Amino acid sequence: MRTLICFCIVARFVSVSAQSAHTEIAVQLKDKGLQELSAYEMLKDLTGNVGHRLSGSAGYDKAVAWGKESLEKAGADSVWLEPVMVPHWVRGNIERAFVQTTRGKQELTICALGGTIGTGKQGIRGGVIEVRSFDELKNRASQAKGKIIFFNRPFDKTKVNTGEAYGGAVNQRSNGAIEAAKVGAIGVLVRSMTNVIDDVPHTGAMGYADSIPKIPAAAISTLDANMLSDLIRDEGSVTVSIELSAKKYDDVPSFNVIGEIRGTDHPEEIVLVGGHLDSWDKGTGAHDDGSGVVQSIEVIRLLHSLPSRSKRTIRTILFANEENGLRGGKAYAARLENVKEKHLAAIESDAGGFLPRAFGVSADSLTFEKISAYLQLLSVAGIDKIEKGGGGADISQLKKFGTAMIGLDPKAQRYFDYHHSDHDTIDKVHPRELELGAIAMSILAWAIAQDGL
Amino acid sequence: MRTLICFCIVARFVSVSAQSAHTEIAVQLKDKGLQELSAYEMLKDLTGNVGHRLSGSAGYDKAVAWGKESLEKAGADSVWLEPVMVPHWVRGNIERAFVQTTRGKQELTICALGGTIGTGKQGIRGGVIEVRSFDELKNRASQAKGKIIFFNRPFDKTKVNTGEAYGGAVNQRSNGAIEAAKVGAIGVLVRSMTNVIDDVPHTGAMGYADSIPKIPAAAISTLDANMLSDLIRDEGSVTVSIELSAKKYDDVPSFNVIGEIRGTDHPEEIVLVGGHLDSWDKGTGAHDDGSGVVQSIEVIRLLHSLPSRSKRTIRTILFANEENGLRGGKAYAARLENVKEKHLAAIESDAGGFLPRAFGVSADSLTFEKISAYLQLLSVAGIDKIEKGGGGADISQLKKFGTAMIGLDPKAQRYFDYHHSDHDTIDKVHPRELELGAIAMSILAWAIAQDGL
Repeated sequence: MRTLICFCIVARFVSVSAQSAHTEIAVQLKDKGLQELSAYEMLKDLTGNVGHRLSGSAGYDKAVAWGKESLEKAGADSVWLEPVMVPHWVRGNIERAFVQTTRGKQELTICALGGTIGTGKQGIRGGVIEVRSFDELKNRASQAKGKIIFFNRPFDKTKVNTGEAYGGAVNQRSNGAIEAAKVGAIGVLVRSMTNVIDDVPHTGAMGYADSIPKIPAAAISTLDANMLSDLIRDEGSVTVSIELSAKKYDDVPSFNVIGEIRGTDHPEEIVLVGGHLDSWDKGTGAHDDGSGVVQSIEVIRLLHSLPSRSKRTIRTILFANEENGLRGGKAYAARLENVKEKHLAAIESDAGGFLPRAFGVSADSLTFEKISAYLQLLSVAGIDKIEKGGGGADISQLKKFGTAMIGLDPKAQRYFDYHHSDHDTIDKVHPRELELGAIAMSILAWAIAQDGL
Repeated sequence: MRTLICFCIVARFVSVSAQSAHTEIAVQLKDKGLQELSAYEMLKDLTGNVGHRLSGSAGYDKAVAWGKESLEKAGADSVWLEPVMVPHWVRGNIERAFVQTTRGKQELTICALGGTIGTGKQGIRGGVIEVRSFDELKNRASQAKGKIIFFNRPFDKTKVNTGEAYGGAVNQRSNGAIEAAKVGAIGVLVRSMTNVIDDVPHTGAMGYADSIPKIPAAAISTLDANMLSDLIRDEGSVTVSIELSAKKYDDVPSFNVIGEIRGTDHPEEIVLVGGHLDSWDKGTGAHDDGSGVVQSIEVIRLLHSLPSRSKRTIRTILFANEENGLRGGKAYAARLENVKEKHLAAIESDAGGFLPRAFGVSADSLTFEKISAYLQLLSVAGIDKIEKGGGGADISQLKKFGTAMIGLDPKAQRYFDYHHSDHDTIDKVHPRELELGAIAMSILAWAIAQDGL
């Protein structure tokens, strides 16, 4: 108990001193951000003039040019492109399915999962087996040959953290085709990864294993998943036909987009902020991760407006290919093996541009306490909590360098309502909520870049 | 420093013990709430079948019947109506304004402020003086005679807490007509109380002073406020005509709606939860305060589902007339003078049905610490903070009884986007966000009703 008490006192002093040194700057950043709401203006531009931007697409190439120009306009000292090879998968024009019942034929709202093979022009057709888990599938393995497996385990609604609900359901999407093919199935339908019951399917990454046959996989809207489940219950069996024109091509060259404000005293010590520039090819990736992208550029814009620059370098990176490969994050980390830079901390925003509530921090306990000491400072931007655990997929690659990995966390209930679907558009983003995230990231980046870790 | 340390330790022990006693119940409440999302179903019913419900209107009478039935259905032991006289103001069909410039006549988007007198059929017409403060008005008093005063001080965008921005602007609405009449003006236009720039005016309460002439007052949309300001800047002076058919009638009898689950051991000790049943006559009062109403009924429904009832009474009150008189809150408090009940705590939800983040508590410091000790317990519903200060307008009347006044606080950025306007409709409310508020209120009410304060 004594240790605990002493520790509290130390933390308290750190907090007070860390706060007073930076409060004036924090208020300046907050005032400028909220007056100008530029993150939202950039997001309008990105979603309106670039649109969605899947790795390997023309949209992504356009986004690279947009990102470079935006970072330059924001006031970065230097902006560069970091080469990286990325997957090239194309949805194509056709993604449709029909269910045949005793009452007739009805269309199902589906979309190809990212990475799936196509069905060929003739499509696939088979009886449907509905399961809620891989265990259930294994138990019914003898019935599965030649069938279409319908993975229909919903989100656990009782999870307050919808990310946990996603985590509890997403193996159906990522590994469903592998597990289904193992038991001889010819295709997969996966219930969309969302709590909402509506008619919009949600795409997302799926994988194959080299030793297992590749079979086509599509997401089905939750409304039609419920309908299909009811039909199976009522009719005993139904037949579904699926047509997908999706196709995978060879990897193509692409880029991370990077800009920085160089530190005055320790330019080789870096505080990284970032989001991922790629998105799925549904909606316009406004929350996922257009928001993180424009917030990360806004950090440069806000910090550039300060009368002096920070002691250490603040670098924004717009990562390539988070959605279906993480190649951008991996390429950036690989480069670090060979350069004399020290990445103190990396702050990622990839949980939607909603009202920010917390930062989640993955770091050793001393570093965690140092970052926690900025809580009072961050309350200028409305942050309530600094929590253990968190980060982001792209920056997770920096773990081996001892970098503190920090994720902006809005604890949003709405994120998976839109995620990877045509719902992910700018009308779901609130200008002030988005900006407050950028402000919070700016304040934290500034404080770490001044004080070190 | 020593006091502080000891205090921390005590708070820590209280926290752990208070938590473990109630965690199981809290999880039950959370699971049931999130599985059924009944608060949203009730809100659909209230906004869809009752609609808006201004004090003294047929809509409010319908809401009383709806509230009584809903509380009964939720499982309250007893439900009753508490009589209260309320104001009766009617907007009427006409609220329009035109600006006359050298370039012609243009319509302005306005709405009557709640409580204003009408203009008569002939309307009012006068030159416009734009001011940003009462001080500026006083300085220009000599020009004001016969004019229409245009109060155009916007929200301070740099306030993270939009309630503070509202507080910094709302005297223009509440007292503008008094101040304008003092200097001889004939009418008032007030910039709508919102951060958003759009074409929807926001109504709200305004007042008159007995000794000062009463002049008509209307809100103007922020888009047209900006346009009018630009016109005045460009043309030097403009003339505006306003027509309002608003009228005030004599007070009418109305009701608070009350239901309770009676405590087993100390039924005379009450934990109150509530929101206000009345709304403005724009939109359907979905956030303000349909959300608080259905959350408060949901508290009864959730607690009724538990295997045992609490030691103390949990009472839900749907207050009459918060918007333009607070008569419901006053009547309830007045009755308490004569009954042998002790109100330990009152929890109000009147800040919108958004994702809940905190409870604000107005109470003596010992009570504050006792309530703070439930933070860990409340994290089951995603609550991050228990803060000093807070409550709600209706329950503010209980202060004299030593009741701990507690407000559910979502710290929303979006509340004043919708507040008192046609935007305040159910499509702005998220079922899970709304339910989490009800769950948090249920957990806190349960814990206090079990432990006392």
